[in-house]
Amino acid sequence: MIDRQAVLHIPLSQYAFINSEISITLRIRVARDGLTRCVLHFGDRVCPSDPVIFSSLEMEKVATDLDFDYYEITFDSPYTRVCYYFELCDSDERLYLFADILSKVLPQERSEFYQYPFMRREEISTVPDWLKQAVVYNIFPDSFASEWRFIRGTPSETGWGSDVVLKSKLGGTIRGITANLDYIADLGFTCLYINPIFAAGEYHKYDVLDYFNVSPNMGTNEDFHELVSQAHSRGIRVIIDGVFNHCSWYFFAFDDVARNGERSKYKDWFYDLRFPVIRPENESIRPTYSSFAYERKMPKLNTSNPEVREYFMEVCEHWIRDYGVDGWRLDVANEVDRTFWRAFRQRSRAINPESVMIGEIWESSETWLQGDMFDSTMNYDFRKNCRDFFGTEAINATEFNARVTKMNYRYPTGILQGQLNLLDSHDVNRFFSYCQKDIRRLRLAEVFLFTAPGTPCVFYGDELGMDGDHEETLRGPMPWDAPFHDEREFFRTLVTLRRENKALIYGSYRALFMDEDGLYIYRRQLKEHTVTIALNARNHTAKLEDMDPLTDPMMSDGFEAGRLAPFGYAVWTQ
Amino acid sequence: MIDRQAVLHIPLSQYAFINSEISITLRIRVARDGLTRCVLHFGDRVCPSDPVIFSSLEMEKVATDLDFDYYEITFDSPYTRVCYYFELCDSDERLYLFADILSKVLPQERSEFYQYPFMRREEISTVPDWLKQAVVYNIFPDSFASEWRFIRGTPSETGWGSDVVLKSKLGGTIRGITANLDYIADLGFTCLYINPIFAAGEYHKYDVLDYFNVSPNMGTNEDFHELVSQAHSRGIRVIIDGVFNHCSWYFFAFDDVARNGERSKYKDWFYDLRFPVIRPENESIRPTYSSFAYERKMPKLNTSNPEVREYFMEVCEHWIRDYGVDGWRLDVANEVDRTFWRAFRQRSRAINPESVMIGEIWESSETWLQGDMFDSTMNYDFRKNCRDFFGTEAINATEFNARVTKMNYRYPTGILQGQLNLLDSHDVNRFFSYCQKDIRRLRLAEVFLFTAPGTPCVFYGDELGMDGDHEETLRGPMPWDAPFHDEREFFRTLVTLRRENKALIYGSYRALFMDEDGLYIYRRQLKEHTVTIALNARNHTAKLEDMDPLTDPMMSDGFEAGRLAPFGYAVWTQ
Repeated sequence: MIDRQAVLHIPLSQYAFINSEISITLRIRVARDGLTRCVLHFGDRVCPSDPVIFSSLEMEKVATDLDFDYYEITFDSPYTRVCYYFELCDSDERLYLFADILSKVLPQERSEFYQYPFMRREEISTVPDWLKQAVVYNIFPDSFASEWRFIRGTPSETGWGSDVVLKSKLGGTIRGITANLDYIADLGFTCLYINPIFAAGEYHKYDVLDYFNVSPNMGTNEDFHELVSQAHSRGIRVIIDGVFNHCSWYFFAFDDVARNGERSKYKDWFYDLRFPVIRPENESIRPTYSSFAYERKMPKLNTSNPEVREYFMEVCEHWIRDYGVDGWRLDVANEVDRTFWRAFRQRSRAINPESVMIGEIWESSETWLQGDMFDSTMNYDFRKNCRDFFGTEAINATEFNARVTKMNYRYPTGILQGQLNLLDSHDVNRFFSYCQKDIRRLRLAEVFLFTAPGTPCVFYGDELGMDGDHEETLRGPMPWDAPFHDEREFFRTLVTLRRENKALIYGSYRALFMDEDGLYIYRRQLKEHTVTIALNARNHTAKLEDMDPLTDPMMSDGFEAGRLAPFGYAVWTQ
Repeated sequence: MIDRQAVLHIPLSQYAFINSEISITLRIRVARDGLTRCVLHFGDRVCPSDPVIFSSLEMEKVATDLDFDYYEITFDSPYTRVCYYFELCDSDERLYLFADILSKVLPQERSEFYQYPFMRREEISTVPDWLKQAVVYNIFPDSFASEWRFIRGTPSETGWGSDVVLKSKLGGTIRGITANLDYIADLGFTCLYINPIFAAGEYHKYDVLDYFNVSPNMGTNEDFHELVSQAHSRGIRVIIDGVFNHCSWYFFAFDDVARNGERSKYKDWFYDLRFPVIRPENESIRPTYSSFAYERKMPKLNTSNPEVREYFMEVCEHWIRDYGVDGWRLDVANEVDRTFWRAFRQRSRAINPESVMIGEIWESSETWLQGDMFDSTMNYDFRKNCRDFFGTEAINATEFNARVTKMNYRYPTGILQGQLNLLDSHDVNRFFSYCQKDIRRLRLAEVFLFTAPGTPCVFYGDELGMDGDHEETLRGPMPWDAPFHDEREFFRTLVTLRRENKALIYGSYRALFMDEDGLYIYRRQLKEHTVTIALNARNHTAKLEDMDPLTDPMMSDGFEAGRLAPFGYAVWTQ
């Protein structure tokens, strides 16, 4: 009997989306090993004759996790308005699934099937190809370089008006980044994602004082202009960090409110602000306004106020138009109203249709990735799953594959391909800190990062083996002269692998083998071209039995005679 | 063992939504009879101390369908930023569900739980209360009345420019509606939904020629102004039908394109239009533009063209501002781009924050009901389920309850309460045509319509027992003088029941009893106030055993001594 409870299909979701005006993808989830066949039937939902004439297509089982099988079909539809249903068969019964009803008989009326109402061109994902093809290097500016491979390493302060100072901790600058563009280009990266650079009080620059100017302790607007121009001349795109959920409590508008009280014309610029407003020096005094994570120095902006929205739309346009930035990573994106992001998309795309918006959303982001807001989100689940498999060994290859399957099928394909996959960032422990000092574990995770669907994003210094599980160390100084592990050659190879194999960007993903231990083998495929990857995430040798003969890997460590040494890997391209 | 495959929770969906800035509802679906307990744990996701401190709340099993139980909890959160997980227990195990992982152990980091990022006020449903409280009467103008209780009943034509005529079939007019407002008010209805009235060629007026004028063969703009004003003076709101997916091929812009070809300044006003454009008299010639359901006389508008959007935004504003209409029913809503609807909402709400948008979407409409587009959709599933249970007997009470459960839990509560529930409309067979000539079946369905969650919408003439399973009859003339069945007293009672019992609008819904036959008992409850309804949808007597003593119904047919006669019902209020 078919397991009814396991069946899931959601119209107009990652289970039913279009890839072009004629190509549509439909998916269905069923119980693991539950079906002998799954067939899609589709027809023209405004078919002039009645009943609708249906066509049938055999669906392919594309993935399996602990509990479920996933079937998928992508096809060119002769109709723009599609109705459809699924036929599910096992050895002793046949069921039809249509509009959330599972039944042995089909419905009477055409409206009772699932509907893809109209394959409108506006519903096609517009994530730019450059983002999907990018290899991203993430720089925390204070920690990276103050000039050619040098970090001052001592805190300092710069004045800002009468009350405020701008802090730096390690002294990194914009010119430091520019000076090291060749280093980054030499590794093969094609995009920079730079943490905040606008004038702000703290060294991390997430408490913005002035959205139109680079922080004087990091350099000048001209420095930044030069950085973008130098990066572009090397084929490197530049994504900057936009912090619009909150600002500094010395941001001009909040300052005005704090000084002028209810008479301030900015009194509606802040979320949940009540008078009297003070800036309590004492941390234990609860502020009379909403703020970022109870941080009283970072009042929350009222982004649904049209005035506030318009102010920040001009910020958005300014940096795209006048400085040529290629996109924004958007801080605390899931706490800002959706109207703000929709306007942001519209305004930034109007200036540069290839500009991107990457939301800082750690969890599953379906509702933010419908094409009206973000192109991509920071994929912290990617890190979590790699940490648990390659790092802490909390999960085995079978569970890891299950988690990867969930990641691969939670978004439409075009969205998945632009996810910003990461192993670490300025907000979490360095991945190496989970690796029990074994660089081979990090390498396995990096191989996965560069061969999985989604855009790889590497935090500065991971290529030099940086460690760190608290703020000081994970955002530590770039170890220019004393790398902990010099992994540059390894990264160069991975970046090249990624850039030279479009299957890693656009190809399908199929798990070929996983055990209850550390051996995981998977394949990316684009037409005839395949990349096959074997990873052994445990401290003992693994035999690659019963696989197609895999010899002569194009990249490997510890592969010999059909075996993978502890923490070994191999990558074959064909 | 807990059935893992049946478990479903989707963040930021009908499974996790807010009702106010402090009230949040969380739901989870599990296998039927699968749990002994289900507990919600929630905490402050930006809790300054680490780890997050969680509070626990026992969840209530609120519904059961064929395969699943649904648990729900609504509570006031002390935090605006909530992380949460579920604890699932059966007799031999305990599992935690967090961020789509089911595990015996909890995760390490706060970001790994489910998140409700920020209980923003913009995320609270703004479906106006008046719509939830409304009882809607749906009029197809050509068929209703040409003047006081009279339908001419013969087709006629009115000239429109040189080439075009405006047709009518039965001769109903705007003044005919106005003249019968007392009839409608006497039945207790509080809202009119009127099918199209703008100048259009066909009698149904879905091929609009002029969006700024009432069709001359139905009356004048002044007539309509008078209708709205007379309706409002009786406390009756007016919803009109907006057809923006397509227009008539004699609409000025299409006419210009057809006459001037590529030189027309309206050449980008139509979806997928290619030159040469002709208006083929021969139906078999395929048009060179997209159209409504292959109907060449109704070219599809390019609603994502800002010029087109702006034109129709002015239409929207005109009728709300200058004529005082209370909302729009929007035709073919799911084939129009979402940007158009978002603008429509913004513009209409700016003029009248209480105006409503009801999309014509027959299927599940989750993605259209996120608060940025429609307040409501036409609930054709409601009709389908009633047809199958009360009419054709295709399903029994158990299956009917399962379908009702799916309807009740597919949207957030605030959205469910504004769904436009209907048994029939101008687009489907009259409900009575499924009733095998037994008016008692229709009555059962009407009792359900008026006691289920969602706004009841009655098609004109259902109260006079209208029948009809093809265009001519289902849109037949209002039988003013010769009702087939005079159900007016019955409707008056139902409307009063609905209007006097807020539990029917805002109350919870609990199925109390359902059998494999026709007996279905359910209860609506708002605080201490309950309405209990028993329906017997089969042609034999049903015993109400093992129920709380239910005597003295406030409304019933065939209820006696704890039994319901064939097709009997009873309603108790307390």
